[in-house]
Amino acid sequence: MPTAIEENLVKGNAVYAETFKAGELPLLPSGKYAVVTCMDSRIFPSTAFAVKLGSAHIIRNAGGSVREAFRSLVISQQMLKTEEVLIIKHTGCGMLTFDNAGARAAVAKNSGEEAAKEVADLDFLPFKDLEQAVRDDVEWLKAKKIESGVRVSGWIYEVETGKVRKVA
Amino acid sequence: MPTAIEENLVKGNAVYAETFKAGELPLLPSGKYAVVTCMDSRIFPSTAFAVKLGSAHIIRNAGGSVREAFRSLVISQQMLKTEEVLIIKHTGCGMLTFDNAGARAAVAKNSGEEAAKEVADLDFLPFKDLEQAVRDDVEWLKAKKIESGVRVSGWIYEVETGKVRKVA
Repeated sequence: MPTAIEENLVKGNAVYAETFKAGELPLLPSGKYAVVTCMDSRIFPSTAFAVKLGSAHIIRNAGGSVREAFRSLVISQQMLKTEEVLIIKHTGCGMLTFDNAGARAAVAKNSGEEAAKEVADLDFLPFKDLEQAVRDDVEWLKAKKIESGVRVSGWIYEVETGKVRKVA
Repeated sequence: MPTAIEENLVKGNAVYAETFKAGELPLLPSGKYAVVTCMDSRIFPSTAFAVKLGSAHIIRNAGGSVREAFRSLVISQQMLKTEEVLIIKHTGCGMLTFDNAGARAAVAKNSGEEAAKEVADLDFLPFKDLEQAVRDDVEWLKAKKIESGVRVSGWIYEVETGKVRKVA
């Protein structure tokens, strides 16, 4: 039995595919850039960040972390020819609401001690200061030799207003 | 001087923010699910996968890998209360076009031996068989104790037709 979420995917996709006309777009993104942003449900990069279909890699994870995304960024730049990265974190981010100890305690409470062992060595990469977290990620990425020649900038998206502003 | 890509972001976002009315959406996604898909520029999850603003975490990386996304998935489920994961890989994926040795050689050629050292231990997680890669990721995730109680399914999106199909 499909779940309601699976049914929503199948039905919504059928509508999308009916008028789909972008089947000829190439593998390499036409704008030669990547956006790293949060998985947060309130962010739609296509409209909020003006990313046209086929133009940019969109990398998303908890907090918009370049550390989690390092493998993807290397592939984007080295194998798929992107030359610029926009790191866009956001106000109201879940990563501001816990620390590593709190996350591990939550796992143990929700799923038991055996499950907690699976994340004993995991850095959840939480942060306490949003602007500083953006600056830290920009600097972390720029410090990599593999990033020489890649332009990196850092931004904050306000989920309350829909506005972005540059911070690094 | 802002780059053309930065200018595109600022101008496009200003248009978006002008009519923005979703400032009251909460942190927890209303649909209680997460989508893991590829960073590929040809995928717009909001329309292609019928994800409404505020309803789901969207996690994206090279190949739609649950291994790279493990930290984000744990946070999504344990801290932000999602209960279902859709893994959606796609035809024509860049991950089908190289292997680890080829990726390391490309880095050395593009950026030099010092840069190549930064990825000497990195698994780029390439794959040769798309359907098998979806099944592998579904099984890898289901095998985690931390995932008990989370529903996981696997899908393929066809960039040529805009259609999704279920494979696991």
